[in-house]
Amino acid sequence: MTHSRRNFLKTSALASSAGIIATSPINMFAQTPRPKEPSGKGRLTLTYRPFDLQLRHVFTIANSSRTVTPVVLAEIAYDGITGYGEASLPPYLGETQASVIEFLKKVNLAQFSDPFRLEDILTYVDKIAENNTAAKAAIDIALHDLTGKIMGQAWHKIWGLDGSKAPSTTFTIGIDTAEAVREKTREAAPLYNMLKVKLGRDNDREMIEAIRAVTDKPLVVDANQGWTDKHYALDMIHWLKEKGVVLVEQPMSKHRLDDAAWITERSPLPVFADESFQRLTDVLKLKGAFTGVNIKLMKCTGMREAWKILNVARAAGMGVMIGCMTETSCAISAAAQLSPAVDWADLDGNLLISNDIYKGVTVTDGKLTLSDLPGIGIEKSNK
Amino acid sequence: MTHSRRNFLKTSALASSAGIIATSPINMFAQTPRPKEPSGKGRLTLTYRPFDLQLRHVFTIANSSRTVTPVVLAEIAYDGITGYGEASLPPYLGETQASVIEFLKKVNLAQFSDPFRLEDILTYVDKIAENNTAAKAAIDIALHDLTGKIMGQAWHKIWGLDGSKAPSTTFTIGIDTAEAVREKTREAAPLYNMLKVKLGRDNDREMIEAIRAVTDKPLVVDANQGWTDKHYALDMIHWLKEKGVVLVEQPMSKHRLDDAAWITERSPLPVFADESFQRLTDVLKLKGAFTGVNIKLMKCTGMREAWKILNVARAAGMGVMIGCMTETSCAISAAAQLSPAVDWADLDGNLLISNDIYKGVTVTDGKLTLSDLPGIGIEKSNK
Repeated sequence: MTHSRRNFLKTSALASSAGIIATSPINMFAQTPRPKEPSGKGRLTLTYRPFDLQLRHVFTIANSSRTVTPVVLAEIAYDGITGYGEASLPPYLGETQASVIEFLKKVNLAQFSDPFRLEDILTYVDKIAENNTAAKAAIDIALHDLTGKIMGQAWHKIWGLDGSKAPSTTFTIGIDTAEAVREKTREAAPLYNMLKVKLGRDNDREMIEAIRAVTDKPLVVDANQGWTDKHYALDMIHWLKEKGVVLVEQPMSKHRLDDAAWITERSPLPVFADESFQRLTDVLKLKGAFTGVNIKLMKCTGMREAWKILNVARAAGMGVMIGCMTETSCAISAAAQLSPAVDWADLDGNLLISNDIYKGVTVTDGKLTLSDLPGIGIEKSNK
Repeated sequence: MTHSRRNFLKTSALASSAGIIATSPINMFAQTPRPKEPSGKGRLTLTYRPFDLQLRHVFTIANSSRTVTPVVLAEIAYDGITGYGEASLPPYLGETQASVIEFLKKVNLAQFSDPFRLEDILTYVDKIAENNTAAKAAIDIALHDLTGKIMGQAWHKIWGLDGSKAPSTTFTIGIDTAEAVREKTREAAPLYNMLKVKLGRDNDREMIEAIRAVTDKPLVVDANQGWTDKHYALDMIHWLKEKGVVLVEQPMSKHRLDDAAWITERSPLPVFADESFQRLTDVLKLKGAFTGVNIKLMKCTGMREAWKILNVARAAGMGVMIGCMTETSCAISAAAQLSPAVDWADLDGNLLISNDIYKGVTVTDGKLTLSDLPGIGIEKSNK
């Protein structure tokens, strides 16, 4: 890279962040050296805004309850096309709307003339700060939506997957009184082929019995690190198998990989890593400790890393689940692009909110149904 | 899948291979159940023909010499667009034009209505027979070319890579008399930033000295399993490092992974697996035994598996080289799509032949220069 090229990038980046340049900086290009692979057509423009998701029900997991999930909605525009992205910020993950906006302010996409250079762009974004994985995912998702739209194809197709193979999604029954759990199960059981329940409290058996009083559909259990003794955990898993549970997530503390390995070796059910697993660099470390990993875009920085994780996990002989936070159909539809390639899908985050502003993946007879739209397959809802 | 759907597929496959159906089987669709995700626009049509590549020089490696490399050129047409593919068949790999054609005759692409379903199509193709990796690569490359053309983008862009980061390629100096090696080196040294030499005979030092009499450019050494004693191999590697060699491939027999690990642990140079490495399932087994792997499309069944290999190798902390056989600019340009992401490129196969019928990646100042064309980035040459 020549000195003048560096100066060009620096100048246009500053100009862009000051709002001087619109989408077609033709005059700048005429006066400066032409970048090696310019699109020549546009500039990447990132915008974002905080948004509060209203939950249909109070949401309770092992150690918290809430009625709102804050998110930040992002858009990246280029050459008249807009890609949508989202950072979902459940409080226990440590990111907030303020921290995401703080992060996104530091992101200078104007230095990249081509939205297809995902490896470079996302490596740059990843290095801006150590954490902020949800903020990074918002950029990743918006860029995938954008490039998919430019190519005129949905990402599951670009990845070579058959959209009709998208699996059933689990639907989560939140922790509640036995009566409330029965009521929720009565509502959900007809609509889904598999339910998920978050355990890890002292009323685990009561929760399962409450669900089993209503339906015998297969269950996935997420213990959310709630069990503290490996023998107790293994006993529970044996009991859960008898109750028609088919998969257990994160039985014990995320740090106790030795206990996880001990349980996984003996477990009659597959045992998947959730809190123990975050990013691509974790996959091979978890081989042996867990049967598989639960990929969440908000934890692994987005679709590009998720696709790599899937391929690495498969090469290591591990199972793959795709999960989510409470989020709009934007992030859910992005995750759903990967779903035809996974063993288990837990993509109900958009079903739990009352003010979704996107339309994308839907659930038909319990099964994820990907839209035919390009990119991540969404459009802004008319609501 | 219903019984009638099965019959439909069977019928239309037979019809297609008999040449009855052209690209728009509208009448058939009107009378039969509609497949779940039809393109509605076309049918995949595979054609192929044997072709003999004329070598510019007699090509000698550790245990053979030849002047011709047989290949099979494949084309997959869909909806008026044609994707190009190639199976290159150097004799030591065990495939012939006859065995490739035998294999391709068994491939029924008419059962797939959508060329984007690469995972399903290539899994089906892979299961037709155990080996035939070059024949499988011909299908894979043609489908990538086709889908890339439909998307209007080259695969390095679809994979998120920056084409301008394609590395220099090595250029191979064949084993010959010292005088002939000096002459070949005099021709090649001005054009390439790195040369490659195939050792593993009793005149290894003579070959290196002959090259060093002409140029001090960095060298890559491929021992082609030629060394039989690990201590001898390590001594050679130390000597080679003093002579400006930067990388060593396959010092010993492909089966002797313990010796490879012993050498790699002590080697002052990176040691890459070539013959020890074939496919995705090998990558994690070679961690520790080699610094990295040499990916060749003809051995790993093509671009889709190559991209997976790259990501798995990176996750395992291993280096990646992209190599080739003697082949046209078709297979070379396909491999070059991956090159911006690798550490080392050895893509000179098309430079060694006199009757290339495609134009694609070129070498400029020793560096691979990817074309802007979509798919694998080639066009049929006017030659």
